[in-house]
Amino acid sequence: MLATVMYGTRDVRLEDVPDPTLDLRPAAGGLDAVVRVEASCVCGSDLWPYRGIEPVDQPHRRGHEWVGIVEQVGVNVTTISPGDFVIAPMYVCDGTCLNCQNHLSVSCLGGGFWGTEIHDKGFADAGQGERVRVPLADGTLVTVPGGMPDPALLPNLVTLTDVMCTGHHAARAGRVAPGSTVAVIGDGAVGLCAIIAAKRLGAARIVAMSRHESRQKLAEEFGATDVVAERGTAGIEQLKQMFDGMGPDAVLECVGTKESMETAIRAVRPGGKVGYVGAPAGGSTLDMATMYFNNVGVDGGIALVRDYIPELLPDILNRTIQPGKVFDLELPLAEVADAYQAMDERRAIKVMLRSHA
Amino acid sequence: MLATVMYGTRDVRLEDVPDPTLDLRPAAGGLDAVVRVEASCVCGSDLWPYRGIEPVDQPHRRGHEWVGIVEQVGVNVTTISPGDFVIAPMYVCDGTCLNCQNHLSVSCLGGGFWGTEIHDKGFADAGQGERVRVPLADGTLVTVPGGMPDPALLPNLVTLTDVMCTGHHAARAGRVAPGSTVAVIGDGAVGLCAIIAAKRLGAARIVAMSRHESRQKLAEEFGATDVVAERGTAGIEQLKQMFDGMGPDAVLECVGTKESMETAIRAVRPGGKVGYVGAPAGGSTLDMATMYFNNVGVDGGIALVRDYIPELLPDILNRTIQPGKVFDLELPLAEVADAYQAMDERRAIKVMLRSHA
Repeated sequence: MLATVMYGTRDVRLEDVPDPTLDLRPAAGGLDAVVRVEASCVCGSDLWPYRGIEPVDQPHRRGHEWVGIVEQVGVNVTTISPGDFVIAPMYVCDGTCLNCQNHLSVSCLGGGFWGTEIHDKGFADAGQGERVRVPLADGTLVTVPGGMPDPALLPNLVTLTDVMCTGHHAARAGRVAPGSTVAVIGDGAVGLCAIIAAKRLGAARIVAMSRHESRQKLAEEFGATDVVAERGTAGIEQLKQMFDGMGPDAVLECVGTKESMETAIRAVRPGGKVGYVGAPAGGSTLDMATMYFNNVGVDGGIALVRDYIPELLPDILNRTIQPGKVFDLELPLAEVADAYQAMDERRAIKVMLRSHA
Repeated sequence: MLATVMYGTRDVRLEDVPDPTLDLRPAAGGLDAVVRVEASCVCGSDLWPYRGIEPVDQPHRRGHEWVGIVEQVGVNVTTISPGDFVIAPMYVCDGTCLNCQNHLSVSCLGGGFWGTEIHDKGFADAGQGERVRVPLADGTLVTVPGGMPDPALLPNLVTLTDVMCTGHHAARAGRVAPGSTVAVIGDGAVGLCAIIAAKRLGAARIVAMSRHESRQKLAEEFGATDVVAERGTAGIEQLKQMFDGMGPDAVLECVGTKESMETAIRAVRPGGKVGYVGAPAGGSTLDMATMYFNNVGVDGGIALVRDYIPELLPDILNRTIQPGKVFDLELPLAEVADAYQAMDERRAIKVMLRSHA
């Protein structure tokens, strides 16, 4: 089959790789599934190695956001059946370990990430390809009732693999509640989804920090009540002014740089909360003194996608939220290299790839 | 009157200073009170400048933990009367600003710290002395019904000025709830009070990190179910082992060093919370990567003492909690220099000073 392999900086290729099959070894436990990928995405975090910010030691498969139709399941799979349309969270998890029981599925003791070996359960293909072997199907996949969905729903469903759940994680970690005042740093797909999430949780006022006109418009469509184009100290001052000189109740940090975290902790009001989901790039650290004297709490991290999908899925199926609008470019898998390039050059907010034309 | 003045490293003197009086200037607003100090304390944070870790630019008054009997009140004071026994939180606050309304009295826009000028409201004496002028009496002081309390209650009441509320703040910030598993880093007065607070909030298991036998005993008396003497990586490993290899739900950081914060974020379970109240010494920073991949939340800061006193006072009056046991030395104000020395040399956990023999 065809799948995406990253070779190095700005070198992404679609290549022939082995077709995935069920793993019949006893160690694999008959817990796997083979899924035909319908759609996948390029993630902002795919750009870190693409841009050379993260080193690429060896060629490796990419793609952790994908949905598809189940083709085969192992003998011990109980909740997933051939023909099911499934959403894959951005990681593999067993659903049974202590961390999964604690709703921390992203820290699953038996799981791992797409494109890697999952302990003794065998290889998990990455999602930017034609098919994926899922080592722990019951714990990982979420079935959407009714088989292949309405094409108009597909982009919305794809966002549940990562960005919509990640935006929700930021809002939950920032303790957004009915009436909250919120600022969102980052106008990428995650930041835009964080606006949806904040509105969904009842925020009274949501400020989008954005300097790109098309993203500002989408932010407003998603529920932003205000837009601030300034960054750094000027952006902080503007935010403080908008909220009685104090700042908003919550700042949702959806970038991951040292600068954006500093802006977040400085901009939030005394006693406010920073919900952060930007993967920390370049050894970020937090200045404790600013936090201490203002009682600023910082919570978040890598999103608990598998735990959130069941909570958010109904709102997508009943069309209450439409996060799929973050996709402003759709390409066939064959053009995956162009997809990376479009996101790298910020010509696209987020690209959806169709694995089968 | 006599009051404590710090001149420099290990140089603390009791000196004659001006007697406080009501400030009759219109700017002062008739909002002040003069209080005769009954008892005060030496705080762990008093030791930072005493030990030369914080520079001492000029001689200055010390003491932010004190209780006393009101002698005089300004014409516009409404809730405090002469003869009242009052508890002073470790800062001055007006009770009316936006931050006070948000239960962030420690960030009061009109307030400040003892031993400094409170905006245009005049000087607030520090507490290690014979009397204090309180610039904003209604917003700052909490009256204990019934006048001068039973002598046995006095040490317990004094802890509400800082350490008991600070321990409670750590437990609240660490989201301790019924059934929580908790580790407390720091066996000083604040750490010991954090054990009381965690037990009070229903923690099922509380590990005291302590290597001093007398403090271990007090920790157990306060509710610790386990003691770990190891520190650093060995301490983290022991904590992990005690809780299914994962670590406890919450770690309460009551020290304030870079090392103790690192221990806290590494020891807590994935998805766990670090409640921190140790004043960050020496430009502490937090490693974001450890936090991000384990979804560790960090909350806390300088305690909201004025907000917590009304919540904790009933439990002291009905003797449910007895945090006053942290005082293992009581001295007259005349021996304040010895009090500092005893704490510096760790001969005492915490010293209570009597201002009037």
